[in-house]
Amino acid sequence: MSQLLTTPADSARASPDPYLPIMSDLLAVEDLLARTLTSRYDRIIALVDHVKHYRGKRLRPALLLLVARACGRVVPAHHVLGAVVEMIHTATLVHDDVLDHATVRRHVATVNAEWGVPASVLLGDYLFTHAFHLAATTGSADACRIIGDATNRTCEGELCQGLERGNLELTEEAYLALIDGKTADLIACCCRLGALFSGAAAETVECLAGYGRWLGLAFQIADDLLDLVGEERTTGKSLGTDLEQQKMTLPLIRLLGAASAPTAGRVRQLLAAPGNHKRDLLRPFLNDSDALPYATWRAREFAARARGELECLPSSPCRTILETLTERVVQRES
Amino acid sequence: MSQLLTTPADSARASPDPYLPIMSDLLAVEDLLARTLTSRYDRIIALVDHVKHYRGKRLRPALLLLVARACGRVVPAHHVLGAVVEMIHTATLVHDDVLDHATVRRHVATVNAEWGVPASVLLGDYLFTHAFHLAATTGSADACRIIGDATNRTCEGELCQGLERGNLELTEEAYLALIDGKTADLIACCCRLGALFSGAAAETVECLAGYGRWLGLAFQIADDLLDLVGEERTTGKSLGTDLEQQKMTLPLIRLLGAASAPTAGRVRQLLAAPGNHKRDLLRPFLNDSDALPYATWRAREFAARARGELECLPSSPCRTILETLTERVVQRES
Repeated sequence: MSQLLTTPADSARASPDPYLPIMSDLLAVEDLLARTLTSRYDRIIALVDHVKHYRGKRLRPALLLLVARACGRVVPAHHVLGAVVEMIHTATLVHDDVLDHATVRRHVATVNAEWGVPASVLLGDYLFTHAFHLAATTGSADACRIIGDATNRTCEGELCQGLERGNLELTEEAYLALIDGKTADLIACCCRLGALFSGAAAETVECLAGYGRWLGLAFQIADDLLDLVGEERTTGKSLGTDLEQQKMTLPLIRLLGAASAPTAGRVRQLLAAPGNHKRDLLRPFLNDSDALPYATWRAREFAARARGELECLPSSPCRTILETLTERVVQRES
Repeated sequence: MSQLLTTPADSARASPDPYLPIMSDLLAVEDLLARTLTSRYDRIIALVDHVKHYRGKRLRPALLLLVARACGRVVPAHHVLGAVVEMIHTATLVHDDVLDHATVRRHVATVNAEWGVPASVLLGDYLFTHAFHLAATTGSADACRIIGDATNRTCEGELCQGLERGNLELTEEAYLALIDGKTADLIACCCRLGALFSGAAAETVECLAGYGRWLGLAFQIADDLLDLVGEERTTGKSLGTDLEQQKMTLPLIRLLGAASAPTAGRVRQLLAAPGNHKRDLLRPFLNDSDALPYATWRAREFAARARGELECLPSSPCRTILETLTERVVQRES
């Protein structure tokens, strides 16, 4: 189990497993995922089995469960909702890979690379609907509404980012609004559900949703940095796809904003050109600017805000782990 | 409004508008759709506005409302759920057009033809999540569960049909199981929700869900016949896509099953070959067989079973309309 929940980079650091206090809860989530994602059709089972390889850090169910435990107790609905948020996240990964023409995810072929675009589109839909159905089995329309609201914003953010492709004038403010929807909202939703279903007070629920939001923003900026300067071998996924898709991310926005007019012109030309060696060509420009440290600083700033929100919680091992996660998300290598 | 709800073929027939008794309810559904599908992003509004052109017969909300009224009463939740099922149906159309590389739908360009595949995939997701969120605003976890269950089966059916592409050995039984999931389940869900939320007895709810299921099977077989022998000018959508995608439908299954070995061999060769003039090449084989009348007979048989389920209802104008619809679905030209 531990292997499933930590990344190679985590293991190398030999730090204690942050999921130790919720290990049995995460096993319950795994069990629900396995029981939900089955089918009477062998061909669908093969497809669903393949996305088990996408299994990553299980960040979203882990956050939901850590928050629940930090707020006092884990109930069966937490396990169900942990499986729901993981299924929604997997659905977005499957569709993202279609949009990015990505061929590798977590060191294995993507669904689109192996089965084609039609199967990927439908598998994503299948995961979305199974997630919503599973959420409804809690008997809580509130849970369905909170999850529906977060996925609305996730899709709106994704859609908007897609429509903004090639817009080299995207501002930092507009970028932050996009990633707030695309990534932070679902993570905030995990923390909100964790707190709500453990019976936390309304203001604690709001603080923990805030923790998730800031953590999500930090996480996405770190992800964007990895896409620009990470190693495919370590991350186990296709990199440089933001550049290929002409998606503006924080380092690029900073680079263009702070550069002299001639330099900005050359970078714009490079970003707008076709071809897939942009990462290498861009590197000297990034190194001559403050773009990378600036983006790292912004990620750290959001992580610090996330940590601040945890002051609403009494001291506990799970609160400590939630604090540690605010450092991990900005230090990650995969 | 009437224009939105009847097809050109309906108008030509000059029969009374079957939606007359639920006109104000359908307007409430339209209003909810307009209020739900809005965004702070202009570019998303443009995209969502485009799918308003997909507006068709509004069969799914109309069935939900007609069943509700035939069972006694329409409550506000019916309007919400009517908008939900229409949004889910639209989401599946948007994704279907991606899978089929369709360029025309309801006489206008498809989203994928106009905005590309990435925007279409994300718009479909956006419509799915907004539908689930809207369902949760009824406060009924039961509604969310019923809708989640139906969409699970819809996606499973679609996925399975996609994975069965090119399988010329598909049996009639397997085909019926596929369309039961892909099409009939969502229509059964509409009737179930209509009956349930008007307070109908459990056995009436089951009969009306059965009505929806048989009607859905009849509808899908009629749709498959249109794809083979309909007119693009009348249907307003790309036709022959089943053949291009090598999807086996009832007339083809019958044609292969009843033909002599040499004829079946020639048809198999034709179906497996690339190219997009298969409709014309296949026509003589269809005309020399009982495939088209057989499929029409099966559709009529399912329509008759649907009509039989309505006997659980007292006589009323809405029951009469539900009966009429069982004839319309098999006679439709678009």
